[in-house]
Amino acid sequence: MRTAAHSSAPPRAPHAFGASLSADEFKALFRGHPGGVAVITADAGAGPVALTATSVSSVSAEPPLLIFSISARSSAAATLARADTVVVHLLDAHDLPLAQLGATSGVDRFADTSAWARLLTGEPVYRGVRAWVRCAVIGRMDAGGSTVIAAHALQSRLERDVDPGAPGDALVYHNRTWHRLGAHSRIE
Amino acid sequence: MRTAAHSSAPPRAPHAFGASLSADEFKALFRGHPGGVAVITADAGAGPVALTATSVSSVSAEPPLLIFSISARSSAAATLARADTVVVHLLDAHDLPLAQLGATSGVDRFADTSAWARLLTGEPVYRGVRAWVRCAVIGRMDAGGSTVIAAHALQSRLERDVDPGAPGDALVYHNRTWHRLGAHSRIE
Repeated sequence: MRTAAHSSAPPRAPHAFGASLSADEFKALFRGHPGGVAVITADAGAGPVALTATSVSSVSAEPPLLIFSISARSSAAATLARADTVVVHLLDAHDLPLAQLGATSGVDRFADTSAWARLLTGEPVYRGVRAWVRCAVIGRMDAGGSTVIAAHALQSRLERDVDPGAPGDALVYHNRTWHRLGAHSRIE
Repeated sequence: MRTAAHSSAPPRAPHAFGASLSADEFKALFRGHPGGVAVITADAGAGPVALTATSVSSVSAEPPLLIFSISARSSAAATLARADTVVVHLLDAHDLPLAQLGATSGVDRFADTSAWARLLTGEPVYRGVRAWVRCAVIGRMDAGGSTVIAAHALQSRLERDVDPGAPGDALVYHNRTWHRLGAHSRIE
C-alpha cells in the first residue's frame, strides 16, 4: 500500500525510491524531446551576458509568469543569480544566427555592437528578434546546482506575430539540430 | 546608474519595475513559442491523474533533473501538490491521441483500461509511448498560484530512440496546432 504524503512534508531523498538514472540514460530521453528556442540576457552590474535556452515556458498568463533554468556551468550563471531583471528573447527561424551565437562557447556575444542596444532600464536587448519580454525575477529554486528562475513579464515587443491558424516560422531545437515549423510540419 | 542586487535579497515586487503585461499581450508572445509535448501522471492515493504539458524541460543530466509547471486550475493540481513521485511521458507524433486525451477537459483519462498500467511502485503509466521516466519530486516553487516542480529521474523506459543525425518523429505544439518534426522541417 502506498500512502499519500502531505505537501508540507519535506521531499524524500531520491534514494528512498530506488536507483537514479545515469547521465547517458537521461540524455537519451531528452535528445528526442524538442524545445522552443530563447536567448536570455541580463546585466547585474558587471557587464551584459547572453545564453541560448530551450527551457523557457509560460506558467500563467494572469499573472504573466514564465520559467527557465540555468546550468551552474553556464558562463551567464553568476550574473543570472544576481540579476533583478532579465530579457527573454523568443526566437523564430529568422533568428537562427542569434540562437547559434548564444549557444557558442568562448565568443563575445556582444561584439557586434550594431546587433543590440540597452533598454532605458539598462538591460541588453538584441534587435530584430521575433519577440522579447523584459521580466522581473520573482523566484529562484536550486535544483542539483542548477537554478530554476520564475519571472514576471513587465514589458514586451512583438515584431512578428503569429496569425491565428497560420503556422508561422517557429524555431525548434531537437536532437542537436534546428527545425522550422510551418504548413509543411503541421499534422492536425 | 543601476546597482547590482545580491541574490539573498528578497525579490522586489514587479511594480517596482513598472507596469505588468496584460494577459492578452503575454499570450501573444507565447502563442508563437513552440514546445515539446509530455503527459504527466501521478497518484497520491486518491486515484490516478494525467495532464498534457508543454513545460517539461531537462535541467541537468548529472544529477538527472527535470522541471515542469502546473496551473492551479488544472484538475491534476491537487494530486501533483501532494505526490512524492510522478511519471513524465515524453511523446512523439505517434502519441498524438494521448496528447489530445490529456489536453481534453471533462473526460476520464483512464477509462480505457487497456491503455495504461501501474508500475510496481504504484504510479499510472500509459503504454506504447516514445519514452517515460519515473521521477521523485525534489522541489516545489509557487509562481502566482501555479506550481513549478523539480523532479529527479529514477527509472525510465525508452521505446523509440532517436538515431544520431536522424530527425525522428518529434511532436511539437505551436499556435494551438500540432506539428511533426522530420527531415522535412530540418533547417541546419
